[in-house]
Amino acid sequence: MRSYSYMHTGKKIDRDAHVICRYRVTTDLPIEKAAEALAAEQSTGTWTGISTLDEKIFRSYGAKVIDITGDMVTIAFPEEDFSIEVGGIPQILSVIAGNLFGLEALHGVRLEDVDFPSGIMKKYKGPKFGADGLRKILDRPEKPLVGTIVKPKIGLSPKDTAKYVYEAGSGGLTNSKDDETLVDQAFCPIEDRTKAVAESLDRLEEEGHKMIHAVNISTNGEKIVQLGEDAQSWGAKQIMVDVITCGFAAVQALAEDPSIKVPIHVHRTMHGAFTKDPLHGISMLPITKIVRMCGGDALHVGTLGAGKMAGGEKDDRSNLDACLSESMHRTVMPVCSGGIYPGVIGKMIEASGFNVQIQAGGGVAGHPGGVRKGAMGMCQAVDAAFEGINVVKYAESHPELREALDLWGLK
Amino acid sequence: MRSYSYMHTGKKIDRDAHVICRYRVTTDLPIEKAAEALAAEQSTGTWTGISTLDEKIFRSYGAKVIDITGDMVTIAFPEEDFSIEVGGIPQILSVIAGNLFGLEALHGVRLEDVDFPSGIMKKYKGPKFGADGLRKILDRPEKPLVGTIVKPKIGLSPKDTAKYVYEAGSGGLTNSKDDETLVDQAFCPIEDRTKAVAESLDRLEEEGHKMIHAVNISTNGEKIVQLGEDAQSWGAKQIMVDVITCGFAAVQALAEDPSIKVPIHVHRTMHGAFTKDPLHGISMLPITKIVRMCGGDALHVGTLGAGKMAGGEKDDRSNLDACLSESMHRTVMPVCSGGIYPGVIGKMIEASGFNVQIQAGGGVAGHPGGVRKGAMGMCQAVDAAFEGINVVKYAESHPELREALDLWGLK
Repeated sequence: MRSYSYMHTGKKIDRDAHVICRYRVTTDLPIEKAAEALAAEQSTGTWTGISTLDEKIFRSYGAKVIDITGDMVTIAFPEEDFSIEVGGIPQILSVIAGNLFGLEALHGVRLEDVDFPSGIMKKYKGPKFGADGLRKILDRPEKPLVGTIVKPKIGLSPKDTAKYVYEAGSGGLTNSKDDETLVDQAFCPIEDRTKAVAESLDRLEEEGHKMIHAVNISTNGEKIVQLGEDAQSWGAKQIMVDVITCGFAAVQALAEDPSIKVPIHVHRTMHGAFTKDPLHGISMLPITKIVRMCGGDALHVGTLGAGKMAGGEKDDRSNLDACLSESMHRTVMPVCSGGIYPGVIGKMIEASGFNVQIQAGGGVAGHPGGVRKGAMGMCQAVDAAFEGINVVKYAESHPELREALDLWGLK
Repeated sequence: MRSYSYMHTGKKIDRDAHVICRYRVTTDLPIEKAAEALAAEQSTGTWTGISTLDEKIFRSYGAKVIDITGDMVTIAFPEEDFSIEVGGIPQILSVIAGNLFGLEALHGVRLEDVDFPSGIMKKYKGPKFGADGLRKILDRPEKPLVGTIVKPKIGLSPKDTAKYVYEAGSGGLTNSKDDETLVDQAFCPIEDRTKAVAESLDRLEEEGHKMIHAVNISTNGEKIVQLGEDAQSWGAKQIMVDVITCGFAAVQALAEDPSIKVPIHVHRTMHGAFTKDPLHGISMLPITKIVRMCGGDALHVGTLGAGKMAGGEKDDRSNLDACLSESMHRTVMPVCSGGIYPGVIGKMIEASGFNVQIQAGGGVAGHPGGVRKGAMGMCQAVDAAFEGINVVKYAESHPELREALDLWGLK
């Protein structure tokens, strides 16, 4: 049986006719062998030579190893290997992040980055609102958005959820959201909750404060557009999707459906199952890029080293950059969330800049003075950072911030 | 702020009112602290005490640590924490396999197993066909099913795909399938491929041989039932879904739609991103259980140590058992696939038993005599194992098997 080399030779590859992936590979094999095995498995090859593969198929559809630098392998997949119209993101993932993770010959392989050619990019519309659209809705052109996750994440009634949102808005927050596990449990049906929260938001607006709340509509893919429409009809001003558990297609379906007229907040729960190991799995960067293609308007990117969730400053920074880069016409609002409290905000904003949505659950609901004062403490910390004032100094004239710093300290 | 203990004390917990999960936890914290942090984060707690959590909410919805044995933590989540009708599997995953993976306090956490209470199980219908249904369609009550994956996985035209299937069937195979990355690329449109393959299957049936081919319909969740219906109308006798990239909901939607009247073959590409690390992520066992609940009729379970894919014999065995256990009224056909060739079949069947579907791509298409002889070699190896005859002895009178053993050896 003829054997084929998946190592690229000859003239420079056309990067705009290929999907280019970078993988970090850990193996006892010579790295070239491992890289070739990966390119073969994910395109036209398998573990043995086969009678049904010919030169024409190999040349047209075989992936090619185009660079190896240390443990980083770059592979180019011909655009023709993808089935964008029908296969969508699931099919893209099956090529760039599929069987390769199971190959016994590799101890670890991590998809670090992906770049799509313009022929694929143009099939994806990206965010309908994005960072700028959210700022416009909230009439807040420059300052970081400041939000809360309603806590406890499960257990509150619709009425208590709405009360929480009202208190948070009264304290100055621009955003709130359901947590990732709350959808439509008996203690808090989605219709009742959405309607009750909408009343709180209306009341806040009457009082001169604009705020939106992301209703978690995470459900099976074939039902999600309908649930999004229902949530809108109940007064939702933003919807939320758990993108890893629901799938990228759920975000895409919502973003591309003309009946959905509110921004989509994208939560990434479960991502840690494959992002945490630095030598295996998928880094957040490709996830971020794909969420943006699919039309997420806001996406959790990490806390740049400040919060309770794993994820180094460098990785989180590259996610944030991928949200805000000029790769598509609209940017995505990067959401910094997970163990945030007033004492870490200065340090976090130093790393993130101002074009972020900062969210605190415990950092609001855990304030000794309650939700409203917790919200005030958060806003004051953001104001101090925005105005370049030392936060301890600022706290001297802002008792809610002072109380938060006393309780949780300063990072 | 009042603090709550997530460690269960008092009378024995009602296991049929809870979702019970076992996690392997790697941490520098005392294991009790880590376990409590996990139970808290995934139910009513967060990293700090909060003013909005009260005794009633905590008692009703807080998860409880019910056992710690070594590094294995068992947590019970009240059934009321789940939103089965609306949130579905995505919501279940957000509770049992969500944020916890990102908690910085844990070096690693792996969901090893899950048991659902009858109140949740009864909401899931399970397979429409299952292992027995597939055997009935193929009129093959006892012997292992023997299949192939059409190779190369991309690049063949519809005509060449159909030719491959005919040759494979002529060699005796009962099953064939598209590979996980083939959906509807320009070189092999799904409609043309499905129709061409259907002609091959009809021709085989006229010649007295029953065979089915799983057409890969992996697509976005909101489109998959329609594509399944289309594939049926083009003559598909089985459909295939990449469950990790498309989502469990895709399998469920197909299985529950009365218009879908063919079995669903479930491929697990991408699972290695979170199953490979023995100390972090999700083991295949919960995935297998959930696929069965959602209605997959056949599922890849690994090769019990025989093939090219990682996965130890013990893990693969527990997946196989989860397919065939009496937990639901219909069993799932376990599919052993990935680097299989005639020389490993005896050893594999020794571990798996006969109620499996054995698949070879390279092990068929890589045969020196071509696809038909490759198929014959595979069938002969299975026959030898089924009849308890030494495979080398059997090969003396079966030249296709002899050639395969000469090429690839015996494991």
